[in-house]
Amino acid sequence: MSLSESELITRFFRSCGAQRRDVALGIGDDAALLECAPGMQLVATTDTLVAGVHFPESTPPAALGHRALAVNLSDLAAMGARPAWALLALTMPSAEERWLEEFAAGFGTLARAHDVALAGGDTTRGPLTITVALLGQVPRGRALTRAGGRAADLLYVSGSPGDAAAGLAIVQGRLSAPPEAAPYLRERFLLPTPRVALGERLAGLARACMDVSDGLLGDAGKLAAASGVGVEIAFEALPVSPPLVAALGENAARELALTGGDDYELIFAVDPARAAQLERALPAQEWHYRQIGVLRGAPGARVTRAGTVMEFSHSGYRHFA
Amino acid sequence: MSLSESELITRFFRSCGAQRRDVALGIGDDAALLECAPGMQLVATTDTLVAGVHFPESTPPAALGHRALAVNLSDLAAMGARPAWALLALTMPSAEERWLEEFAAGFGTLARAHDVALAGGDTTRGPLTITVALLGQVPRGRALTRAGGRAADLLYVSGSPGDAAAGLAIVQGRLSAPPEAAPYLRERFLLPTPRVALGERLAGLARACMDVSDGLLGDAGKLAAASGVGVEIAFEALPVSPPLVAALGENAARELALTGGDDYELIFAVDPARAAQLERALPAQEWHYRQIGVLRGAPGARVTRAGTVMEFSHSGYRHFA
Repeated sequence: MSLSESELITRFFRSCGAQRRDVALGIGDDAALLECAPGMQLVATTDTLVAGVHFPESTPPAALGHRALAVNLSDLAAMGARPAWALLALTMPSAEERWLEEFAAGFGTLARAHDVALAGGDTTRGPLTITVALLGQVPRGRALTRAGGRAADLLYVSGSPGDAAAGLAIVQGRLSAPPEAAPYLRERFLLPTPRVALGERLAGLARACMDVSDGLLGDAGKLAAASGVGVEIAFEALPVSPPLVAALGENAARELALTGGDDYELIFAVDPARAAQLERALPAQEWHYRQIGVLRGAPGARVTRAGTVMEFSHSGYRHFA
Repeated sequence: MSLSESELITRFFRSCGAQRRDVALGIGDDAALLECAPGMQLVATTDTLVAGVHFPESTPPAALGHRALAVNLSDLAAMGARPAWALLALTMPSAEERWLEEFAAGFGTLARAHDVALAGGDTTRGPLTITVALLGQVPRGRALTRAGGRAADLLYVSGSPGDAAAGLAIVQGRLSAPPEAAPYLRERFLLPTPRVALGERLAGLARACMDVSDGLLGDAGKLAAASGVGVEIAFEALPVSPPLVAALGENAARELALTGGDDYELIFAVDPARAAQLERALPAQEWHYRQIGVLRGAPGARVTRAGTVMEFSHSGYRHFA
């Protein structure tokens, strides 16, 4: 089968995302024309997924389409921004109709759920690599950054970290989980849920925020370092899902929650004087987050368990280590 | 040698582009924060370069850095937009200091020349693939598109198409050119010159515009089709550089000008009633463009030579053919 680039784009991508009135000119010209809203700052991020590095070659194309957008949505969530427009650069060995249809379905479903228009892109031939650039908007001065935390701020995490790392291990055949746990964990890896609504609601409530993609402990250390402080996490406070505990036991589940990658959850720091306001505005039971520690004056990241400090040899994923 | 992603970014990319006051938050957080100017539309494009597909593996890294940005600048030029901010997604087999230094130098020199800030990006491990997303701005309603042309509009091209295709053939050892011509042609492939200033000046003067990257004849056909018309190009009017003629002879030089890729020149259509105004505002001698044909009511793209219609078997590059 042979499709020209323009045939391919027309068939699979022209109507793939949300229809937005602020797209003055979308796919099909040399560039897209977009209308920024007054009073807003533009928020821009890009993330790449490489076959065999960020996902196993066997990953279903719909999950890849979802994931390529989800990891970028997670970055905008961490800024407290509302996503708007995506550009998709898709490099693939050949243009397989079936593959493209499923990929576009996965991408498009998530895009429409978040009202994201696919405004442009590029399709090229080569080893399977997917890069999305995602643009969004945030009211001027309201963006969350990594740098706003202060000593004594309470540190929270959304969702249940560690699930995705276990899911990847199951997909790769490195971990076997009981039948009632495996499908949930696999799906948490394949179809991560970016916390876009939570991020947007946290703008104005949290002092610092970041998305967790390379392991909670390492990423919490990065947030703390950007804020000029350190961080202490209470091992017992780490939220772990029942399926993760069923697969690994409680202790190993919490260890994976600290060090596993691909969570796409949010960590955020809140002034203790505003903790009650946070709980009123965003009830933790409903929004699925939990306090796991505090920022502290002394630099570095440490984990305490029953009052003693634990050591970890691995604090995150190093791309080129 | 082993560099973490954050070390790599700090060393090679944090100060790589222009410093702009409208970058509220640049490299180092989950996303960049940018200030859109009032009265402007945002213009967004992305293009990918894949090793072995878009450039020979032997291409010097500085040329790759230049090229990855240049092809995107060319898209914004075609819209009449002024570039502002870039995101760089760089996938590479390993993090080699020397390679990164040269790549960043090539990218940064061109970025600073066009006042483009490198606002964010992603570095990943995998087969060498470079995706740039480029954002710019254009006064609302002034953007040039492919669709504005009408029958009887004059069609122009900038620069001297065909040079880059000859340069690639020289780099690949498929063409030998005389010593006075080869370095020029090679450089025209390795370091394309996006026509950013010309594009911006054409907004308000031209009715339609497009950048030529897949071959002049095929791309002119795309502009015409988007405008709902056809195009006729006069073979003798095609501008060819003296080095290209020295390498190929005049006839083959013009054939390559019609069909060769990688030009990154602009084609644009102008109302004949405004041709004199174009020449006054942008003297052709100074801005290096030439009329090569006209748009016409009958659909399709054709080339005339001494009054007869020529046939071409190849009218552009098909990515997946």
